[in-house]
Amino acid sequence: MTRILYDLCGRDERLRFSPYCWRVRMALAHKGLSFETRQWRFSDKQALAFADHDKVPVLCDGEKVVTDSFEIMRYLDQAYPESPVLGEGLAQSRILFFKHFVERSVTPALFRIVVMDLLAAIHPDDRDYFRTTREARFGCRLEEFHQPEQGRAQLKTLLAPLRDQLRGTDFIDGDAPAGADYLMFGSCMWAYSVSRAAWVSAGDPVDEWFKRMLMVHDGVGAKAFTIRDLD
Amino acid sequence: MTRILYDLCGRDERLRFSPYCWRVRMALAHKGLSFETRQWRFSDKQALAFADHDKVPVLCDGEKVVTDSFEIMRYLDQAYPESPVLGEGLAQSRILFFKHFVERSVTPALFRIVVMDLLAAIHPDDRDYFRTTREARFGCRLEEFHQPEQGRAQLKTLLAPLRDQLRGTDFIDGDAPAGADYLMFGSCMWAYSVSRAAWVSAGDPVDEWFKRMLMVHDGVGAKAFTIRDLD
Repeated sequence: MTRILYDLCGRDERLRFSPYCWRVRMALAHKGLSFETRQWRFSDKQALAFADHDKVPVLCDGEKVVTDSFEIMRYLDQAYPESPVLGEGLAQSRILFFKHFVERSVTPALFRIVVMDLLAAIHPDDRDYFRTTREARFGCRLEEFHQPEQGRAQLKTLLAPLRDQLRGTDFIDGDAPAGADYLMFGSCMWAYSVSRAAWVSAGDPVDEWFKRMLMVHDGVGAKAFTIRDLD
Repeated sequence: MTRILYDLCGRDERLRFSPYCWRVRMALAHKGLSFETRQWRFSDKQALAFADHDKVPVLCDGEKVVTDSFEIMRYLDQAYPESPVLGEGLAQSRILFFKHFVERSVTPALFRIVVMDLLAAIHPDDRDYFRTTREARFGCRLEEFHQPEQGRAQLKTLLAPLRDQLRGTDFIDGDAPAGADYLMFGSCMWAYSVSRAAWVSAGDPVDEWFKRMLMVHDGVGAKAFTIRDLD
């Protein structure tokens, strides 16, 4: 059976930085499931018409087509129940809060730091689309939204709970990584893939955790092509 | 068997506002466990010597003595496994993050709003102790720390993930309240018990959730004595 992940690529096709795709890559690695990727760009809406969707990730697992990163993680737990990434019951309700924390607090602060590097990493054909949609969302020019010091200050405050937790445990989900680690890692890997800018202080428990996360599952994160390989 | 909870009281002995005690009260109510309280004040360190501890809550469950609110919740899950409040495995790792979120993000912002009302609600004999220890922690006078508008602005930002979640579900832990709701409710009930100051806008999903939480378990929150009954 062929398993295919539609995955956003940048100005070099090896540059894969979507935070939502990274969640799914890590969840697939967690389950030990092999897959191929299909490179996709923002302008390739037509390529996803078969899935009745206009964004990646899209996972084709044999005949099954699943869209939305969180739905894909849920699907993987249902189809491959061993070693859950989201879990059930209280575990699933609580990761839903954590998902909102990553998306509403962490990612916007990271965005302030990497937005211009992200624009440069995106395929030239996608840049107009990116600028138009993001400027509409932010209500200002990308150049004005780019406030790395403000982003770092926001992150420092809002990561306090995570810092406290990671002083006592190797991974957010305990002794081994699972869904909460993958949600957080997706956003961190997005920033790391496209930018050399620091988003957390060296030696911070969150920085130590990120280094550990780069190495898990045979170092799938550490081996990934990033902007460092391109310059 | 007698079950006794040592519980902080204020200038009126019926005024019970400790966020950590409220977590435990709600967890006991969740499990359907009856208990009596023993009123305690910051200056009564000697009264807790039997527990080798200097803070409330302390729970005496028959012969068993348990200190620290989170440890008490964990103990209750072990001793009374039906209807878990913390849960196990991924659920427990994830509530640990949520505990840090409440303690490091939510509670300090609420503190900016209610600190002077809190001082007034505390027993006169406890006020010097409270002022000295909190001013040492904050590094400034209570009067300077009191910044309600700043606290409300911080809360508005940091509650964004919770607001998003509560748009889709009645309780943080899903269709029924459990440990995450009790951790958050503890801090909100602390602010509500001692102060009439608004900490969230009317109609906000978090405000709607708080109203629901006041009514759960036979309205133990709604029936509690607050500053409104004292003035």
